[in-house]
Amino acid sequence: MRPYKHPAADELVLERVLYALSDSIRLDIVRHLARVECATCGELDGGRPKSTVSHHFKVLREAGLVLTENTGTSHMNTLRRADVEGRFPGLLAAILSQGDAAVAATKKKAA
Amino acid sequence: MRPYKHPAADELVLERVLYALSDSIRLDIVRHLARVECATCGELDGGRPKSTVSHHFKVLREAGLVLTENTGTSHMNTLRRADVEGRFPGLLAAILSQGDAAVAATKKKAA
Repeated sequence: MRPYKHPAADELVLERVLYALSDSIRLDIVRHLARVECATCGELDGGRPKSTVSHHFKVLREAGLVLTENTGTSHMNTLRRADVEGRFPGLLAAILSQGDAAVAATKKKAA
Repeated sequence: MRPYKHPAADELVLERVLYALSDSIRLDIVRHLARVECATCGELDGGRPKSTVSHHFKVLREAGLVLTENTGTSHMNTLRRADVEGRFPGLLAAILSQGDAAVAATKKKAA
């Protein structure tokens, strides 16, 4: 398998990071990776079709949020937390912390 | 002129806010509004075609970032800072603060 291409840490673009996180599936993947640090695509696909998930991983890689490495026959994904934090201090934490609040608000509303 | 529709403060969706800010023209408009508090569309269009700018304002309104009000023959836009902050604490500040750093980095690189 050919290695995936990833942008360098100093090439990350704010708009691209925000776009990558503007989709609930991709936001879920990043939230998951923020908890576990690394995971295979299979562990992150939530039972969704492979083609859909591949596209989302591509967007996340191109934004510089996720590093995908070939490990034998599977792909291992890692959140590029330090790179994103170095380029956009406080951004990822500010976005990911909203997740819980929004989910909590939705649950509260539904109850 | 009919009044514009805006989502209520508790209806704001994180993904929609991030999507609205994932475009450099819209990010510029929001940065501008963060400085001046209110401005007409004309003051914010940067000489771009009206149809393009109208679309961007629609996205910003629907995300709940911008309030557009009819004032006589023009439209006055305001950043819904308190509503966004109430729903997503720290998010807008974290995103807008990146602007300056990214611009500074680009300028530094070009110098």
